Amino acid sequence: MGRIEIRFAGFGGQGIGLLGRLLGEAVSLYEEGKNSVMTQSYGPESRGGASSTDVVIDTIEIDYPKATELDYFVVLSEEAYQKYIPKLKKGGILFVEEDLVTLDDQANKAKKIFKIPATKIAETLGSRLFANIAMLGFVCANTEGIVSEEALTQVMKEKIKAKYVEKNLIAFQKGKEYKQE
Amino acid sequence: MGRIEIRFAGFGGQGIGLLGRLLGEAVSLYEEGKNSVMTQSYGPESRGGASSTDVVIDTIEIDYPKATELDYFVVLSEEAYQKYIPKLKKGGILFVEEDLVTLDDQANKAKKIFKIPATKIAETLGSRLFANIAMLGFVCANTEGIVSEEALTQVMKEKIKAKYVEKNLIAFQKGKEYKQE
Repeated sequence: MGRIEIRFAGFGGQGIGLLGRLLGEAVSLYEEGKNSVMTQSYGPESRGGASSTDVVIDTIEIDYPKATELDYFVVLSEEAYQKYIPKLKKGGILFVEEDLVTLDDQANKAKKIFKIPATKIAETLGSRLFANIAMLGFVCANTEGIVSEEALTQVMKEKIKAKYVEKNLIAFQKGKEYKQE
Repeated sequence: MGRIEIRFAGFGGQGIGLLGRLLGEAVSLYEEGKNSVMTQSYGPESRGGASSTDVVIDTIEIDYPKATELDYFVVLSEEAYQKYIPKLKKGGILFVEEDLVTLDDQANKAKKIFKIPATKIAETLGSRLFANIAMLGFVCANTEGIVSEEALTQVMKEKIKAKYVEKNLIAFQKGKEYKQE
């Protein structure tokens, strides 16, 4: 399959870092023969500002952990979209939180664009805090050969605080089952 | 101060990744004008095998997130010591869990070597699970100008599961107050 680069981005407080950790661990622990490296950048503006995490996956050892040409870009804020859309490779795949991101011409290079109302899905569960995991569920269902639902839900059970696990698993399912109109 | 590279390493289950996240966030959020990038690698052998996390700190934007010449190497397992000691720079600083790591000639290039009984310190609190944070407390007290105790303890309160916060704060203090004989 070769090297795959995925970036999750949004604003501070959306739980972007968690998505990288869940995906990185799920791939390595449960997908045989795959390595992954997760990188998270923090700037002085982290609190409330832009937040991003990269996951690089490969079947060989990963020497260069930074994503340079994104195969997948999953974005939950306008600021993060503007900042990172130049890094999406031509023919890459774009996932946007449709109520938080306004697309422009820069999105044209994507082979596919998915628009997901992740925050609205989360709100049906009582809190927009689940939007990140709803997005992850959708991404899992709409990417091929990266990571299985089983691997991700297993890691979620281990990594997410006990009292939030159940609602996050529901958010994941709802994201997974969401069909773009 | 220039670029600073720190690696934490040990075996799976020691909570190595948490150390990188705590340090990375503490530096960025509470140390004015500093950026940080945290990278965590997962191999197929992650579960129980070697685990490592790098934190790179700089006052300018960090383009290359991977540590290449470690200024500080904090190591909690023999396997991780053997694997990564070649990356410690000449004149760098080495922190080892003294009951889990056997030093050899490769450590000679270090300017300072600290040996900390982090696991024993943790056991006085009822669980060796606190060894990572005891180590972090010692590192905080024995490095200059990287991160303050206040910044780290603030992030610990936010990031660590509520029921474990108190014991981890004690472990941090005990590590901080430990004096090498």
